Amino acid sequence: MFSPSIRSLIEEKAGSFIIPASRIAFVEDENPLYHAFLILTKMKYSKIPVLDKNQKVVGLISLSMITDKMLTPDNIVIEPLSDLKVKDVMQTDFETINFAHTNLETQLHLLVDNPFIPVVNDNNIFQGLLTRREWIKAFNYVTHSIDDKYDITKKSDPSEAS
Amino acid sequence: MFSPSIRSLIEEKAGSFIIPASRIAFVEDENPLYHAFLILTKMKYSKIPVLDKNQKVVGLISLSMITDKMLTPDNIVIEPLSDLKVKDVMQTDFETINFAHTNLETQLHLLVDNPFIPVVNDNNIFQGLLTRREWIKAFNYVTHSIDDKYDITKKSDPSEAS
Repeated sequence: MFSPSIRSLIEEKAGSFIIPASRIAFVEDENPLYHAFLILTKMKYSKIPVLDKNQKVVGLISLSMITDKMLTPDNIVIEPLSDLKVKDVMQTDFETINFAHTNLETQLHLLVDNPFIPVVNDNNIFQGLLTRREWIKAFNYVTHSIDDKYDITKKSDPSEAS
Repeated sequence: MFSPSIRSLIEEKAGSFIIPASRIAFVEDENPLYHAFLILTKMKYSKIPVLDKNQKVVGLISLSMITDKMLTPDNIVIEPLSDLKVKDVMQTDFETINFAHTNLETQLHLLVDNPFIPVVNDNNIFQGLLTRREWIKAFNYVTHSIDDKYDITKKSDPSEAS
């Protein structure tokens, strides 16, 4: 069971743990790979969302997905950067979160295996990102505020009874 | 104040939140940049530690640090991959954790701005990594176990007194 006191503390801050779409670097699926190479190199993000022209999230792309296309058995080549589009190399198997339907347990569980999860609305339109970084901040808040708001006492351990 | 009950739960699991050095991909400072490009592309890690020949942590390197060297004003070039060494492009300003001296508060604080922190011993020899992923697991454990081991009751709020 997810602790009710911790849930309550996190819900006080609900909404502050998402990074809004307006602050996030992304590329479009029809962009040449060259463009994603530049964005990822300059922004220094390891992976970013890919949107279609309607702002729907259609994939994720990282530098290693791009550089992998540049490897040949005996050389590194730059032609794929102009020959391919983002949609040709992006990851299309990924999780999304819709705050209307995804509870805290599931959010936390998804972040074990994903550094970030795109947040979408019911029309799959990109709303922002939920990130491990923001959950580390949430955890930091919980560890420093729970004792101000709750009395916490250790339960007696039956195995320690003499 | 860091919650004593949460501290106790995390310390029960102490040591299980570090990924040991034997399981971590790294490169050496004298490796050609080409080698780091291959390792980072194939392992898909966004950033890895750089060790010297004595297993001391001397830097961190990411794909974007490498691809940044491949950008010229009007082209992308591959020559820097053979002309440069890892030590020429790695980040040398980074935090480390020594479990003998770094408390939980500091560990959590450092992970807000770093996806991982190299763990070293008193001789600066690489021991492993502390990662956001492992702390997300720790948080998951805390949220699901704290109510089994502690009685938690909301403090009365003086502002709600009638």
